[in-house]
Amino acid sequence: MTHTISVLVANKFGVLARVAGLFSGRGYNIASLTVNPTMDSNVSKMTIVTNGDDAVLEQIDKQLRKLVDVIEVQDLTGGNFIEREIALFKIAAETPEQKHRVISLIELFAGKFVCVSPESIGVEITGSSVKIDDFIKMLNGWTVLEMARSGRVAIEKN
Amino acid sequence: MTHTISVLVANKFGVLARVAGLFSGRGYNIASLTVNPTMDSNVSKMTIVTNGDDAVLEQIDKQLRKLVDVIEVQDLTGGNFIEREIALFKIAAETPEQKHRVISLIELFAGKFVCVSPESIGVEITGSSVKIDDFIKMLNGWTVLEMARSGRVAIEKN
Repeated sequence: MTHTISVLVANKFGVLARVAGLFSGRGYNIASLTVNPTMDSNVSKMTIVTNGDDAVLEQIDKQLRKLVDVIEVQDLTGGNFIEREIALFKIAAETPEQKHRVISLIELFAGKFVCVSPESIGVEITGSSVKIDDFIKMLNGWTVLEMARSGRVAIEKN
Repeated sequence: MTHTISVLVANKFGVLARVAGLFSGRGYNIASLTVNPTMDSNVSKMTIVTNGDDAVLEQIDKQLRKLVDVIEVQDLTGGNFIEREIALFKIAAETPEQKHRVISLIELFAGKFVCVSPESIGVEITGSSVKIDDFIKMLNGWTVLEMARSGRVAIEKN
C-alpha cells in the first residue's frame, strides 16, 4: 500500500542525508520525495511517498521520530488529506496529425501548454498522482523527450 | 545565485542518501529537492535547487558525476528551460470579510480552491517558484495553518 508521510525537520545540514540513509539502510522504498522550506525558516518539510504494509509504516514512523532534528511525523494516508502533484512533459509531435492528437489528449487532462516547436509540444499537468499516472499511461506509443514530476505534496483537509 | 540541477540516477537503494550526503558533507546548500520516477523504470530523476557561485556549481557538478549510479547531470539554469512548482496552502479565514479577502488574493494568483471549512480555505497555486514566493509574501499577516511546496521541476525548452 502507498503511504504519504509528511516529516517536519530542522532546516540543518545533513538532515536529508540522515532521512535518506534511514530509508536506504533499512531497505524501505521511496517512491517519491520532496523537501522544501516552510513558513518558518528554521523548519523544512519533507513529503515522502513509500510502499509497505502497516507494520513497515509503523517501523518507518518510529525510526524517523528517533532521528535528531525530526520535529514531527504525520501519515497523510487515507481520505482526510488533499494531495497534488505537478509534472512537465515534452512530447515528440512533428506532423499536424500528431500535434492534433497530442493537443486533444492534453485538453482531456486539462493540461497547459508550456512550449511548442516544430518537433514537439511541452505541457504541464497538475492533479492527483493517480491522474498523472493515467496521463503517462495514455502516452504509451508516443515519444516522451523529457519528463519531470514533482512528487506528491499534501495537506490535511479542513 | 540559484541553480536548478537535474540529475538522472539509477533507481537503486542508497542513491538519494549518497547525493544528499555529498551536499551535506561538503556544505552545499539544498533549497529544494525532488526525486521521482521517469519513463524508464530503472532511472529516477532528481531536481535540486541550490545556491552558489559558478565555482561552487562546477564543484557540485564534478562531484555528482563521480558518484556511482549517477547517469547524467544537467544545469537547467538560464533562459532555456521551463520551470514549475505546485504548492498547497490552508489559510485561516473565519469571518465573511476574511474569506472574501482570501478569495480575492487566490483569484489574483489564478489559484484553485481545494477545500473550505468555516475556519479556513485550502488552495492550490501553480507556476514558477517566484510566483509561489510572491504568493507567500502576500500571505504576510494571515495565519497559514498548513503549507506544502513541491519544489521546482524543469524541462528544457523546445
